[in-house]
Amino acid sequence: MGTEQLAQDGGHDAAISGFCPLYHRAIEIIGRRWTGAIVRALLAGDTRFCRIRSTIPGLSDRLLSERLKELEAEGIVVRRVLAETPVRIEYHLTPKGEALAAIVQSASAWAEEWLAPQPQARPAAS
Amino acid sequence: MGTEQLAQDGGHDAAISGFCPLYHRAIEIIGRRWTGAIVRALLAGDTRFCRIRSTIPGLSDRLLSERLKELEAEGIVVRRVLAETPVRIEYHLTPKGEALAAIVQSASAWAEEWLAPQPQARPAAS
Repeated sequence: MGTEQLAQDGGHDAAISGFCPLYHRAIEIIGRRWTGAIVRALLAGDTRFCRIRSTIPGLSDRLLSERLKELEAEGIVVRRVLAETPVRIEYHLTPKGEALAAIVQSASAWAEEWLAPQPQARPAAS
Repeated sequence: MGTEQLAQDGGHDAAISGFCPLYHRAIEIIGRRWTGAIVRALLAGDTRFCRIRSTIPGLSDRLLSERLKELEAEGIVVRRVLAETPVRIEYHLTPKGEALAAIVQSASAWAEEWLAPQPQARPAAS
């Protein structure tokens, strides 16, 4: 069996240590409810509050506002106030935030492979 | 500025769509409190309940037990009962669980680069 073999040959011992506080913190940041979706929306080019909220189904104003403040505090997002009338506010990823793209992409790839509904088996060509 | 430029050239528009329910679900799974750390411990080769718990500082028996049950329900972990005296119980990642290694690795790489304390600036060699 696949898992049996992985256990026998030692799995990922060489590459991955059992615990890493920095990794744990990274997962806490990106894994916080809605944060992963907000970072993805920002990576996709959304910059306005209303636009981010409408991109993500089920996200409330209050939670989006909280999450953006947390991401600002982490140095992942910058809030810019543009001197227009009315004042225009934009949210952008910092370089630290842009670097999260690798996590977003690996999570997307895993999701596509393992969470997508299986297509119906096609009848064999005769 | 770096972020200005990223915003102007459209950032990651081509690669990343604004919202993806499968990605959202993947982040919910791995981002659930302690789950990321448990998956990492399993990838590193821990198979016994006590071993996983002692690898992860601050994790209680109750929460480890809950999280392992959730991971079993998701098809990410299998629980094996070995007919020994006393009975031996092991937890292993399924292929779906092993595939999470890519997310663990990208999160670790980001954490190492962006969350690690900066080393003191060394005096320039004279």
